[in-house]
Amino acid sequence: MDTDHPALRIAVIGLGAMGSPMARRLAGAFDVTAFDVDSQRLSEVADAGVAPATSPAEAAQGADTILLAVRDAAQVRSALFGADGVVETAASPAVVVLTSTVGVDVARDVERQLDQRGLGLVDAPVSGGPRRAGAGDLLVTAAARPQVLERANPILAHLASNVTVVGDRAGDGQVVKTINQLLAGVHIAAAAEALALARELGLDPGALVPVLSSGAAHSFMLADRGPRMAGGYTGEQPVMSRLDIFVKDLGLVGELAREARVPTPLATAAEQLFRLADRAGLGATDDSSLITLLSPRSSPEEPS
Amino acid sequence: MDTDHPALRIAVIGLGAMGSPMARRLAGAFDVTAFDVDSQRLSEVADAGVAPATSPAEAAQGADTILLAVRDAAQVRSALFGADGVVETAASPAVVVLTSTVGVDVARDVERQLDQRGLGLVDAPVSGGPRRAGAGDLLVTAAARPQVLERANPILAHLASNVTVVGDRAGDGQVVKTINQLLAGVHIAAAAEALALARELGLDPGALVPVLSSGAAHSFMLADRGPRMAGGYTGEQPVMSRLDIFVKDLGLVGELAREARVPTPLATAAEQLFRLADRAGLGATDDSSLITLLSPRSSPEEPS
Repeated sequence: MDTDHPALRIAVIGLGAMGSPMARRLAGAFDVTAFDVDSQRLSEVADAGVAPATSPAEAAQGADTILLAVRDAAQVRSALFGADGVVETAASPAVVVLTSTVGVDVARDVERQLDQRGLGLVDAPVSGGPRRAGAGDLLVTAAARPQVLERANPILAHLASNVTVVGDRAGDGQVVKTINQLLAGVHIAAAAEALALARELGLDPGALVPVLSSGAAHSFMLADRGPRMAGGYTGEQPVMSRLDIFVKDLGLVGELAREARVPTPLATAAEQLFRLADRAGLGATDDSSLITLLSPRSSPEEPS
Repeated sequence: MDTDHPALRIAVIGLGAMGSPMARRLAGAFDVTAFDVDSQRLSEVADAGVAPATSPAEAAQGADTILLAVRDAAQVRSALFGADGVVETAASPAVVVLTSTVGVDVARDVERQLDQRGLGLVDAPVSGGPRRAGAGDLLVTAAARPQVLERANPILAHLASNVTVVGDRAGDGQVVKTINQLLAGVHIAAAAEALALARELGLDPGALVPVLSSGAAHSFMLADRGPRMAGGYTGEQPVMSRLDIFVKDLGLVGELAREARVPTPLATAAEQLFRLADRAGLGATDDSSLITLLSPRSSPEEPS
């Protein structure tokens, strides 16, 4: 229990790849209640001291902060405003912390709706993946009115090693995260193209990753996903980051770019690749499987 | 004068952005004679102790090593096999070091032709840019028969902080460099898309570069070109790396990928962007000018 905030009560809604390690991490310092549509996931975090709730409304009852770690805009709206939603019980001055990447318009609309109920919204999309979520080592691009952000600070500080305040209204965090995902998605797809080409030309992609990473071709994604791609995708690797996250996020990039009238041919090509991979049945696999679209030699053997 | 190799004579053919600093650097340790079609460039390196020659043949007379730092395949063939070309005077066991990115097929064909004259070829495309060239801090992906490579080692060691031997025949270095350029070109184009989008949405791209560079969106190119793009391209910045290099190199990527039957939609989109920029008259500018295609607010003012 963090003695600075002994009474801080947090509701965590959504115990997926990111929500589950965040709930565990927060339970080490605060009083945490969680909800997930899959009750199995609630049982799995019980050992960390996370109390279960049967609805978002029940979790939010008496909470100071409601942390949303759900997948997409539809789940955000359902958790907040649907049947047994957060707003049925949450009371001012509670604040909602939105850690999901759902796009600018959704974040602004949610802020407006919460405002009407006296609830603040912190637009705080996170990056870093499950491991860093569990270690309090996330990166957060946060945007909120200062007095709202202040109430969420102890929670963000416990989850993230780096909180960058990028604006003072909801949506600004989403913009930065969306631009982040443009680069991340393009870099993954570029790594897949480069290593597929290497493999098909008879080179060892695994030996190539450190050579390429030492110079102008370096990217975080090449160094991170490259070795998984190079090893030959077996279909049995652990899912570090689901491929269909980039189907969603590059879709948000496309919307934002269309609105701003900025041509983004590379992001568009990357979105199409991720969508092809999703259609090929790879949506729930690790995104390093993208290489199998481009290099048959990188594919797992068909079951015989 | 490097006392280990007091008598080593080097001919440098091509004194462009890379050839000139390499010639200067080599002249600090070896006996260097150079040729360039532009005699002005020969005068500019005289103070470093580089002796001028009036043709590739004259430069190569009595040389142990002939370093080629020309622009493209046509210039390579002309310098070696054209009128007053290197092969008219170079004698076994001299070796030619090809530092240009000209593609696999050209490198293999050149090796074949030099072989017939008893001359070895080291396929040694370099990266790192002019500054690192002058500091002996280049990255080289080298490929050659071991006994040929051995003869070039003192020169490569003086130019590069990192020589990775990627194969034992000419062409292998070109393959790795071409794959390197796939990533580098895509990353530059992705940075342009991301920062153009940021600017058009009213964000400060300069403030965003360090935020994005701290996480999953990081690339060498974002950190290197990003600040130049973010500053607003004025048309008066120094040319650190010419845009049309990537027109050429992404063209080589396209050829290699076509041959290997690997889909490379991102590299293709990047090539098209660089080609559009070249057609817009930006070929000889710094490649950070690519952003002006995507964001009118990043363009220099038209002269009034």
